Amino acid sequence: MTLIACWTAAPRIGDLAGNCARSVTAVREAAAAGADLVVLPELVTSGYVFTSAQEAADLAVPADHEVFAQWARAAGDAVVVGGFCERGPDGEVFNSAAVVDATGVLAVYRKVHLWDEEERFFTAGDELPPVLDTRAGRVAPLVCYDLEFPEFTRALALAGAEVLAVPTNWPLVPRPDGERPPEVVIAMATARVNRVVVACCDRTGTERGVRWTAGTTVVGADGWPVASGGAEGLLLAEVDVALARDKQLTARAHVFADRRPDLY
Amino acid sequence: MTLIACWTAAPRIGDLAGNCARSVTAVREAAAAGADLVVLPELVTSGYVFTSAQEAADLAVPADHEVFAQWARAAGDAVVVGGFCERGPDGEVFNSAAVVDATGVLAVYRKVHLWDEEERFFTAGDELPPVLDTRAGRVAPLVCYDLEFPEFTRALALAGAEVLAVPTNWPLVPRPDGERPPEVVIAMATARVNRVVVACCDRTGTERGVRWTAGTTVVGADGWPVASGGAEGLLLAEVDVALARDKQLTARAHVFADRRPDLY
Repeated sequence: MTLIACWTAAPRIGDLAGNCARSVTAVREAAAAGADLVVLPELVTSGYVFTSAQEAADLAVPADHEVFAQWARAAGDAVVVGGFCERGPDGEVFNSAAVVDATGVLAVYRKVHLWDEEERFFTAGDELPPVLDTRAGRVAPLVCYDLEFPEFTRALALAGAEVLAVPTNWPLVPRPDGERPPEVVIAMATARVNRVVVACCDRTGTERGVRWTAGTTVVGADGWPVASGGAEGLLLAEVDVALARDKQLTARAHVFADRRPDLY
Repeated sequence: MTLIACWTAAPRIGDLAGNCARSVTAVREAAAAGADLVVLPELVTSGYVFTSAQEAADLAVPADHEVFAQWARAAGDAVVVGGFCERGPDGEVFNSAAVVDATGVLAVYRKVHLWDEEERFFTAGDELPPVLDTRAGRVAPLVCYDLEFPEFTRALALAGAEVLAVPTNWPLVPRPDGERPPEVVIAMATARVNRVVVACCDRTGTERGVRWTAGTTVVGADGWPVASGGAEGLLLAEVDVALARDKQLTARAHVFADRRPDLY
């Protein structure tokens, strides 16, 4: 079994040093709890609700920033996937996710589906996420709104991803009483139709008037939530990643082999 | 607003005449209730659990069978989408859905994703469903397992479908207490990420040892169920199809325009 730790946090906009320090503490605590995979929210270093492109640029850090070395030192045996505001080599600003283990930064993925006003602040990435062989299985990082494009998550599953690690910042949207956040419903269906684990780490709190969903949820490869809860702190979920390696639904039904790529 | 009627039924395997007669009565009742769209289960004419290809062939009917003329006469102003066991021109047997209104058969769609043992009985279709302009909006028929392929439902939404009409026979599968059937979770996510109405008409009862889910559910274009319930008989759901014509999630987020077809 694989232990996934998601750190529901409330980054403080503008407090780069404090946000980084708190994220390192969370990684250390997750590693101490035995986590194989640690997922942190989107833009955990910077906060989300920027008022200008300049503010985002001022809070952006390069992929060789000290915080990632700190995550690496705190990670123990775990793999860490966390969102950050990235300053690219030519000064572009990306909404990115870093994948880090004790050896350092394994990959940086730049969000390709920018949501709503994000294009004011970020340049969209132009590459699919990597699929990385880790002790937590074959992990692909994606960011928030990316999850809402089923052709994208399908592409990752077909590329061999067994665990989708999803740093998110879900603004609270209306939903009927008793329903899960809509993004969680999408995560469940994504898990089910691809037979992959989906680990969404959301943020909490209210930031410049935006209330966050605090919808952190880990969904197993059978499509059912293993753990969910938006309290600030670590959420631990034990999942069976081996399920994600078996794409048979029944003796003869197979989620990939039954596709009809001749038609779509 | 658009009134959708789903007829949760328990077809009797082998009782072609009785199944047809009951389906005509259901269409007439739905039309009398004011339905704009009537959805009947998969294989409503024949039943599902065949023991041999010969049995399926013996129960198959061509698309000009009298039952469709009867649906047409019973339909009033409604459009009917119902599943049937089709005998093709060269004797092939298809798991099909007919779309019928008062003028007759508008289209026949042949299920392209055959589930589990269905390939023993059916030839897979090799065309995408049509998208038909109707009084219930732009309707695309699909059948059961088709719904579990997000690239397929996306293709229909991109082709202009506003309402996915889904005759189904969902065998009951285990699920955690308090959860909806997994197929309904997939229907909700499909509706949400495409902003389309999804109307799933399931069957009920137990047939040759297969217990059915009776999961009939109509999901609005915002992704939330409008009505669900598996009691034998008509389920009525009023939906706002106009929602499916507006693909904006926010002022700047758009479920289609935000896709990245350069990447997938």
